[in-house]
Amino acid sequence: MINYSTGSGEFENWIISETEFSSNKLGKSEAIMYLGNGYLGLRSATEEPYINETRNLFVSGTFNKAEKNEVTELPNLADVTRIDILVDGERFSLELGETKQYIRQLNLKTAELIRTIYWISPQGKELRFQFRRFVSLDNLHLIGMRLDIESLTHPVEISIDSGINAQMSNSGSQHFLEGERRIFDKKYIQLVQTTNESSIDAVINTTHKMTINGVEANIDPIMNMERRKVWLTYDFALKPKENFKMEKLSTVYTSRDKAFDQPNYHLQELREHSLQDLKANAMQGYDVLFQFHQDAWQQQVWSKYNIDIKSENIFDELALKFSLYHLTVMTPAHDDRMGIAAKALSGEGYKGHSFWDTELFILPFFTYSNPNVARSLLTYRYHGLAGARKKAIDNGFKGAMYPWEVAWPTDGEVTPLYGDVDVVTGEQTKIWSGFIEQHITADIAFAVYQYFKITGDQAFMDECGYEMIFDTAMFWASRLEWSDNEQAYHINDVIGPDEYKEHVNNNAFTNYMAYFNMQLALRCYDKLAKENQKLLDKLEEKLDIAIGTIKERVEKIYLPQPREEDLVIPQDDTYLDLKEIDLTKYKEQEMVRSIYRDYNPEQINAIQVTKQADTLILFYLFEQTFLQNDSRFNKEVMQANFNYYEPRTLHDSSLSLATHAVLANDLGDKDLAYSLFVKAAEIDLGPDMNSSNDGIHAAAIGGVWQAAIFGFAGVRLVNGKLRINPRIPKHWDSMRFTIYWQDQPVTLLITKNLLTVTPDYNRKIEFEVYGKTYQCVDSLKIALS
Amino acid sequence: MINYSTGSGEFENWIISETEFSSNKLGKSEAIMYLGNGYLGLRSATEEPYINETRNLFVSGTFNKAEKNEVTELPNLADVTRIDILVDGERFSLELGETKQYIRQLNLKTAELIRTIYWISPQGKELRFQFRRFVSLDNLHLIGMRLDIESLTHPVEISIDSGINAQMSNSGSQHFLEGERRIFDKKYIQLVQTTNESSIDAVINTTHKMTINGVEANIDPIMNMERRKVWLTYDFALKPKENFKMEKLSTVYTSRDKAFDQPNYHLQELREHSLQDLKANAMQGYDVLFQFHQDAWQQQVWSKYNIDIKSENIFDELALKFSLYHLTVMTPAHDDRMGIAAKALSGEGYKGHSFWDTELFILPFFTYSNPNVARSLLTYRYHGLAGARKKAIDNGFKGAMYPWEVAWPTDGEVTPLYGDVDVVTGEQTKIWSGFIEQHITADIAFAVYQYFKITGDQAFMDECGYEMIFDTAMFWASRLEWSDNEQAYHINDVIGPDEYKEHVNNNAFTNYMAYFNMQLALRCYDKLAKENQKLLDKLEEKLDIAIGTIKERVEKIYLPQPREEDLVIPQDDTYLDLKEIDLTKYKEQEMVRSIYRDYNPEQINAIQVTKQADTLILFYLFEQTFLQNDSRFNKEVMQANFNYYEPRTLHDSSLSLATHAVLANDLGDKDLAYSLFVKAAEIDLGPDMNSSNDGIHAAAIGGVWQAAIFGFAGVRLVNGKLRINPRIPKHWDSMRFTIYWQDQPVTLLITKNLLTVTPDYNRKIEFEVYGKTYQCVDSLKIALS
Repeated sequence: MINYSTGSGEFENWIISETEFSSNKLGKSEAIMYLGNGYLGLRSATEEPYINETRNLFVSGTFNKAEKNEVTELPNLADVTRIDILVDGERFSLELGETKQYIRQLNLKTAELIRTIYWISPQGKELRFQFRRFVSLDNLHLIGMRLDIESLTHPVEISIDSGINAQMSNSGSQHFLEGERRIFDKKYIQLVQTTNESSIDAVINTTHKMTINGVEANIDPIMNMERRKVWLTYDFALKPKENFKMEKLSTVYTSRDKAFDQPNYHLQELREHSLQDLKANAMQGYDVLFQFHQDAWQQQVWSKYNIDIKSENIFDELALKFSLYHLTVMTPAHDDRMGIAAKALSGEGYKGHSFWDTELFILPFFTYSNPNVARSLLTYRYHGLAGARKKAIDNGFKGAMYPWEVAWPTDGEVTPLYGDVDVVTGEQTKIWSGFIEQHITADIAFAVYQYFKITGDQAFMDECGYEMIFDTAMFWASRLEWSDNEQAYHINDVIGPDEYKEHVNNNAFTNYMAYFNMQLALRCYDKLAKENQKLLDKLEEKLDIAIGTIKERVEKIYLPQPREEDLVIPQDDTYLDLKEIDLTKYKEQEMVRSIYRDYNPEQINAIQVTKQADTLILFYLFEQTFLQNDSRFNKEVMQANFNYYEPRTLHDSSLSLATHAVLANDLGDKDLAYSLFVKAAEIDLGPDMNSSNDGIHAAAIGGVWQAAIFGFAGVRLVNGKLRINPRIPKHWDSMRFTIYWQDQPVTLLITKNLLTVTPDYNRKIEFEVYGKTYQCVDSLKIALS
Repeated sequence: MINYSTGSGEFENWIISETEFSSNKLGKSEAIMYLGNGYLGLRSATEEPYINETRNLFVSGTFNKAEKNEVTELPNLADVTRIDILVDGERFSLELGETKQYIRQLNLKTAELIRTIYWISPQGKELRFQFRRFVSLDNLHLIGMRLDIESLTHPVEISIDSGINAQMSNSGSQHFLEGERRIFDKKYIQLVQTTNESSIDAVINTTHKMTINGVEANIDPIMNMERRKVWLTYDFALKPKENFKMEKLSTVYTSRDKAFDQPNYHLQELREHSLQDLKANAMQGYDVLFQFHQDAWQQQVWSKYNIDIKSENIFDELALKFSLYHLTVMTPAHDDRMGIAAKALSGEGYKGHSFWDTELFILPFFTYSNPNVARSLLTYRYHGLAGARKKAIDNGFKGAMYPWEVAWPTDGEVTPLYGDVDVVTGEQTKIWSGFIEQHITADIAFAVYQYFKITGDQAFMDECGYEMIFDTAMFWASRLEWSDNEQAYHINDVIGPDEYKEHVNNNAFTNYMAYFNMQLALRCYDKLAKENQKLLDKLEEKLDIAIGTIKERVEKIYLPQPREEDLVIPQDDTYLDLKEIDLTKYKEQEMVRSIYRDYNPEQINAIQVTKQADTLILFYLFEQTFLQNDSRFNKEVMQANFNYYEPRTLHDSSLSLATHAVLANDLGDKDLAYSLFVKAAEIDLGPDMNSSNDGIHAAAIGGVWQAAIFGFAGVRLVNGKLRINPRIPKHWDSMRFTIYWQDQPVTLLITKNLLTVTPDYNRKIEFEVYGKTYQCVDSLKIALS
């Protein structure tokens, strides 16, 4: 069972707890309590093993294609977390003996995982165990573990097997060649792995230090090697009340690390460096290293993001801290060649690939909270132009056609070709999104626009942004299909955000976003022609910008209009004519995507059922652009579309609820908005013990932040300006947080009646609150009606 | 705990039982109770999973090299045995709830595995489970499983997950590409796997049939697919006293099967054929298929080998039946392109490779009991000439240099390069046997000679045997090293059977066997020159038989002589001068090879310690040849060498004890012989719960048969003639068995005082008993003193 409070004093409301252990429900805590630092992600499988556990260690960017029938993915590296403990010859396991006390806690503030257990062995020996673990934010290569054992009643013989195990795989797919293993001085263990296609070397090092009652215990270990495995066996006796403590420190390095991904790279150097780092860490010990780590969290995360919610429901505050925790551990802020994975670094789901999830649901957090990281994430997409151009050429288009799924940026499209079972044919379903889910290209252009407008980072635009905008616009210009009948450009045979509709024509979201993307290119072109002809010349030379074509075609794109009778914008050419079925069963489902148990994709395609927000996102996105005055997106139309589509939407994507929460807030329905916020947070943090098995939902976690900041606080970029329309839930007394606006941190404090805006650098800012424009250089208090 | 009796009536003394389940000791029963038919081997992991289990399915001959850093091995195919059972949402596991009754039995007579359990769930629901399983000897592609559940006290909700899981690997090394999965009619599941280097397709098919109280239960399953996995979920309710029965039938086919390993092979045909076979089997059902299987065992095994021991100790009889069981299931009698693996098909140990284990310790059983199979195994070595010639060329020699380890016969040497940890350096030890353990070449020549002398199979000699003998002799002729000092040919830098001595010169066993091999070639040459010049011409044309060189060199081979002072033959040039240490600790060890925990290979090399019978085997082998009158191998010398080497021998190879048992018998020490026989049988069947973790010991199992037949019954080929010198243990009343001699089954009945010899076809045979020659066509009784 997951609890959401506990912790007191310094850690009040900072702790996620599991108070009961069930070996049938392992995935939830493994994923939502996973540790990481953007460089590496360590799924929180327990030290002692269980059937159905998933033990994962991923390093960002180490993509590999295991074999020709698979797509590239993040490989599961060698494990250091499993520790086999025998007590008088009996395996320590919570399935055996009796567990008298149990608690596992993820301390969000210190990013430490702590598990405390009072266990009675099958033979009746009583022991207390404590396991602690962190993945350092101070040294990105460091994993610290600590194990305390106290025998309470009897003298016991303990045997511990601990080392490095590279028998791991990705659900059976092995990415690594058998590599060298070595034990130095019976103390330092090193294991080398090399990916079988991308030839990335990974070096894992580990060492143990033991004390009994605080005195160093010189236990002579047995050395063991097996295939892909090397470990030490420590046998020792423990008297009653004696305290045994073992520290296990590990370092993880790979040849993808920027420092080693160099022409003169040698594996031997990587081995020596990583072992030296381990030895240096071992000199300091767990407590000192943990303090460095904790300080880094305070400085880089909690001081910086500075969020504070006062709510009747402590869950709300915890949900936001949980979001900030995960937004930090999932993000490879150290390397702009790497993106954020849809399941973060917490599981094999979606193979470590990045989707539009990043740009739409995660990037905004960084754009507003840590623009340097946002820039790094967009630079990843800039590197991805190579892959996008390749995809465009392969598909007969011009410019940059971004991959639906991306891994190493220059590799281009990596969406798998086959998925789940088709309930009708018994075959694997074909996955079409890598071919025809094309809106991502415009989504990325939108993200560049949003980033620039909020940060004012002209240097990024000059170096990367304009190029991305021109080349994406060129893709659309070449992608449009002329309809002689309609005398308009259509975009046929696509998948929109609603993936329950495949091969549709004129998906409203796609058409409008393509329109925006091309309009944006025109504006950028005009701006550069006026302000920076030199850069424009350079770009014209590098790219094939047919600006005339863009200009001529953009105005002829078919843009679905609200229907006269009910203002509903057709999601695509056929949606509104599809048959309707009773969706109650699926709206009330326990597990998402349950409709696939009854219908196959072809059948779902023929029903008015939507996986996730589709047309509705347009309202939220277009408001932020220079098109915000478009009457097609006014409140009345928005309400009509919300009323039409939401009941037909199963929220079977984790991207859906938070968007609806923001929109419900915009529409003034505070209660609905709040309940959608809670539901969005519960995707990972809720009582469903299976929803996070494949990994946490990175976009949903970003979405929780958006539901709070864009929804309740009403923060929004509107036509290049900052708008703050707070509508905090009735359960909330206040919310405080800091956003970056034009390179200045601005702290907002919102209570029911008052908005306080404080530009931290005392540089003038301008913003709008409920239609009225304000300017200030100091703290400004604005009464809310 | 393993028991050795139980069973009554028809099955008295036919059953190996495990009466207590321990999840810490899984390997033993998994291995010694494994099921197979020579085509496939299925390790007996339990249906419900446990940590530290090893779940294996191997198909003979499907060798694959997973990646460049590894050697080829038998890949672990997709699993059909795991079945996940939930009882009211709780996982059925003997680690959970309470197990009131438990017994697992391998019935050697019917080759069926039966597990009966009375289990109380953690919630207090009482259930009876019975699991049954066989691997058909009637249809080599068929695996039959059956599950019975009765809820004794409460109504329960049962959920069963069952299908095909290809997430298996060989200790993390994945041999298979991700393959297609398919469910036909919600009923027949098919999964395709293809090896990533040898491109062998394997197709696994499975289906379920369920009844409740004997009435077909139409439970609509949920279909599931994951990466490398496809399965069905069956949910149903069971009232108290209702009997649920599920049959799970599976077929396994591969493109290595002779029927499909053809130029016009198409995967689609393999898929269709294997599915059709499944459907046909499903029509018959478990009970009918099991009857076919049981009949096949009776006809092909128990009627044929016809062994019967009357001993005070029922273990002895069971040990022999256990040997015959395993000799049957380990042997790919269906395909002469395949050999016997050192760990049979019961585990990953030694990677499915064949060693001299086959020729020295297993082949004799078949030569005497089922000559067709012996011929198939020798034909495998004949195919292996291609690999042996390649190895000779690679090493700068002539003729055929057989690989120390062989997999697919034409592939040549496949010994891995690295092994266990070196306790001094912490590195992996280098394995030298693939380079310098060369006696195997002569061992194979000996096996050909022995086979021919016992069977009189001239056709085999003409087609294969002579070619093997000439080409192995040519290897030795080219391998010899002339010593100017000694004016003799030496064989330097080898490993003999005692692998604790690497890089030795003039290992006695190797030198004498090379001498025999070359002498044998000379005799064959002379014989062919006299009797079949046409064949000799053909062979001369095909091979490069430098018969003059062989003749000239063979007499100049240095053959170590018994020392004058004590008649000890030096194992090699330096052994007798090495230092001696107290070996008590290692002689009394619980686990073999414990000396490696204290010494590294280099250090062991410098101690008078021997892994296994080395010089001693010579006595036993030479007696069978035309060199049996060599006075160097008389009883006195034999006794002296036994007395010298046995105390220095750790029996750290499973090949050692049985050889010593035979020799002890020859030396007249019946008690020692009997105790060594028991110890040899206990290698797999004894109380050590870890000794068989990596798989059973095929050579030891053949050795148990040899200890009984060559030892106690005193059967031996002596200079081309049959000798029977019985010396049955004092605990034994009688032994009866059938051997083949010159293509005629001959049944021997031995009691303490009487030997009865019955030539089953009433063809005259001649044999010697204690120095006296007999002839008979009918049953002949000979009094024993």
